[in-house]
Amino acid sequence: MIRKKPGLILLSLALIAASIPLSFVIAQQQPQGYKYSSQLTEELKLLQKAALESDYALKQAAYLCNNIGPRLSGSAQAARSVEYVAGEMRKLGLEVKLEKVMVPHWVRGIETGELVQYPGMAPKTPQKIMLTALGPSVATPSEGITAPIVVVNNFEELAGLGESRIKGRIVLFNYKFDRKLQAQGFGGAAYGQAVAYRSGGASAAARFGAVAALNRAAGGAVYRLPHTGGMRYEDGVAMIPAASVTAEDADLMAHLALQGEVRMKLVLTPQMLPDVESYNVIADLKGSEFPDQVIIVSGHLDSWDLGTGAIDDAAGVAVAMQVANLCKELKLKPKRTIRVIAWMNEENGLRGGTTYFQNQQPNLKNHIAALESDHGAGHPLGIDAHVSPAAAQMLQPAVNILLASGAGLLRIATGSVGADISPLEAAGVPGLAPIQDDRYYFDYHHTPADTFDKINPRELAENAAVIWLLWLMPSPACPNHSQDNI
Amino acid sequence: MIRKKPGLILLSLALIAASIPLSFVIAQQQPQGYKYSSQLTEELKLLQKAALESDYALKQAAYLCNNIGPRLSGSAQAARSVEYVAGEMRKLGLEVKLEKVMVPHWVRGIETGELVQYPGMAPKTPQKIMLTALGPSVATPSEGITAPIVVVNNFEELAGLGESRIKGRIVLFNYKFDRKLQAQGFGGAAYGQAVAYRSGGASAAARFGAVAALNRAAGGAVYRLPHTGGMRYEDGVAMIPAASVTAEDADLMAHLALQGEVRMKLVLTPQMLPDVESYNVIADLKGSEFPDQVIIVSGHLDSWDLGTGAIDDAAGVAVAMQVANLCKELKLKPKRTIRVIAWMNEENGLRGGTTYFQNQQPNLKNHIAALESDHGAGHPLGIDAHVSPAAAQMLQPAVNILLASGAGLLRIATGSVGADISPLEAAGVPGLAPIQDDRYYFDYHHTPADTFDKINPRELAENAAVIWLLWLMPSPACPNHSQDNI
Repeated sequence: MIRKKPGLILLSLALIAASIPLSFVIAQQQPQGYKYSSQLTEELKLLQKAALESDYALKQAAYLCNNIGPRLSGSAQAARSVEYVAGEMRKLGLEVKLEKVMVPHWVRGIETGELVQYPGMAPKTPQKIMLTALGPSVATPSEGITAPIVVVNNFEELAGLGESRIKGRIVLFNYKFDRKLQAQGFGGAAYGQAVAYRSGGASAAARFGAVAALNRAAGGAVYRLPHTGGMRYEDGVAMIPAASVTAEDADLMAHLALQGEVRMKLVLTPQMLPDVESYNVIADLKGSEFPDQVIIVSGHLDSWDLGTGAIDDAAGVAVAMQVANLCKELKLKPKRTIRVIAWMNEENGLRGGTTYFQNQQPNLKNHIAALESDHGAGHPLGIDAHVSPAAAQMLQPAVNILLASGAGLLRIATGSVGADISPLEAAGVPGLAPIQDDRYYFDYHHTPADTFDKINPRELAENAAVIWLLWLMPSPACPNHSQDNI
Repeated sequence: MIRKKPGLILLSLALIAASIPLSFVIAQQQPQGYKYSSQLTEELKLLQKAALESDYALKQAAYLCNNIGPRLSGSAQAARSVEYVAGEMRKLGLEVKLEKVMVPHWVRGIETGELVQYPGMAPKTPQKIMLTALGPSVATPSEGITAPIVVVNNFEELAGLGESRIKGRIVLFNYKFDRKLQAQGFGGAAYGQAVAYRSGGASAAARFGAVAALNRAAGGAVYRLPHTGGMRYEDGVAMIPAASVTAEDADLMAHLALQGEVRMKLVLTPQMLPDVESYNVIADLKGSEFPDQVIIVSGHLDSWDLGTGAIDDAAGVAVAMQVANLCKELKLKPKRTIRVIAWMNEENGLRGGTTYFQNQQPNLKNHIAALESDHGAGHPLGIDAHVSPAAAQMLQPAVNILLASGAGLLRIATGSVGADISPLEAAGVPGLAPIQDDRYYFDYHHTPADTFDKINPRELAENAAVIWLLWLMPSPACPNHSQDNI
């Protein structure tokens, strides 16, 4: 829905769509083989304006977060979100297919920690530790595990201590999330460093005989927020319970452990149930000229269970849905098929992305580009393009327009730009994603505080505008790449 | 303990203390009736340096937070903290008295909330609401209360709805903490507005027949932090359960309630047990010339139970203890009695402050000044002086020195500057307190995130230096006010 002056904008855009084919024939940018239309700039500005002024994406994100809630794979809420997105896409006239995906069904249980012995402790005054199980952690016995904790800052310190100092203990990986790096705008890099301990800590500790593993929250917030996420058990290594403690609780344990023995009672009762049938929602707006050629716009529908999965990743689903909505609102007819995908199970399995990739083997060559937004809803700075530098230039008209909203950075990515689309990218499909300002993303994602209010309406619209302008561009991988998409 | 060059500083300060009486005879500031010494500036600088370089206060705060933990009145930890502070003061040679204070013994129980009906809800998908009981809320029945919620933004809206729209419902006071005011440095004012709904919401709602009352967190953080605190039941009004929900959960309920009926199941099982005997810790460093004249330096020892009471108010106790420590380290002999007080039960009863006041009725005239730090450990901007403008000028030498660390603001307070000392102030005893930068204080206080890491070591030392320099000043109320305290 367009909030301001809908009549005027709709009219002008409808006219554009009906009578003026967008062609790309300008002299300013002259990548080999195609040119841009002199009218393009004004046309794209109008299209951008439509995306910036619409609150459709915001309303979709609100529904997913507030009316449905947390959407962990296998949950009733995840199933409800599939129904909901499919229904919304059908309302817009898209051809909807639910692609079967068997997903893990891990269910969080009781999760408590307390320090039952520490220096200076008065009788009967255990200290509560705030923690949350990682998926798919195994459970402790129902009465819990009580053991001394050993604190290490990294894998090297773990190895240095060796089995004699670790066997029978609970290992706390106290690796500090690099907030300075995050503040500089490299939240993803900071996360990458910290998440190694969340993902691999349990097996690393188990190799030395640890009975459980804890990692310091892999996020930047200092508001005693537990921070869940995925972990992996290595084959052939004992599967020990794994949880994440808040930054504050890690500090507390580290402080006390320097003074003497600290013993913890840890109770985790998650359950790993049999796989559940779930779905990728695949909604096609068929191309008018090249219906077999597909451009994916996507986000992931599942979320972690502590918050309501707003910036991770209701926002991504919502901006993908917005492409279909704007096409309908503006009566635009894409020449190629726009495929809105709401992926299932990005968080703890990537089953949606891998299933789609397997099912699409015969059609991979028809995938012109894959767009995914899964790095929050922060102000977009530009575009990550997993394409050749030469091909990236084809995106320049959109980038020129995005400059006006501060999103004019065009960065050539050398690796995948989205988890769900990564199998496609590995097979040569160009991947595109907004570059979001992630200085705050890792303060919230995977925590109870990833809630709808974390989405700034203006910034979500800016992200929608990025996705919206990108799919309009002639795709770098398109066989007829000198042709636009409308 | 002094961290850097202890020998040099100790020596020079010991020399000062031993051989050069601090007198206040300078020409620069000439309030009527007394003068300042020409040597004073340099002497005070050395004293300030000693406070800034000592980590004694930090270590005390660390012990209270980490080795003892939350210290709610009546708890084992509160009792342990009394023992601890008394022991530390005895170690320094102070004369310690435990002043009996009967305190409320409210114990938090289970506290859960879930939305069991809301627009768009799929079967069996209640949404979890993060909340925490307020002290001394009564309990719900053990099976909980399930009722529709009604959302109001303020008391006026509540009155506007009236009994027909409120009876039998759970009222959510969705008054938004004014983060803009907080960011401008008026956190206390923002808190004052919001806390009215925490304190008085339950009785206001009960007058219209509500079955429970919720208030939106009276704090600035947006990290899904429950925010506890005190509330009051009005006489003659039904006592209904009262809890605080996070800002995010308030937003969620308000969003859903606009769309249709929202029903909540609320379970709170706190218990109000019989009063418990507890204590103010009163530690005297006897004055060498006027032992009957007392200057109080203080903070409160009890805390709320969700966090470990670091900035509220281990920090205040620690900077008061530092005065005793520095006197010993520097071998200073106060002429008047320095009375370090760690107050009990500031948070949910003020029994410590009122008991002391009652017990001191015969000695009130000997109370030269009362200092309290209970507004966090943020960078001090200066001093709140609850004295006459003329008397405040006597603090000018300290203020001049504090300017160098940015704490040179001297503000004449027209009301109390500390809860525990407020009865004394009301009886005419001059009250003094640091003015802390409170732009972040209300993001943490009363939440699980009020933990030791929230204390910035440098800023705590700055606060210690403020208290330290203040007691040295000739007190505005001192019968011999032209005389200094050493």
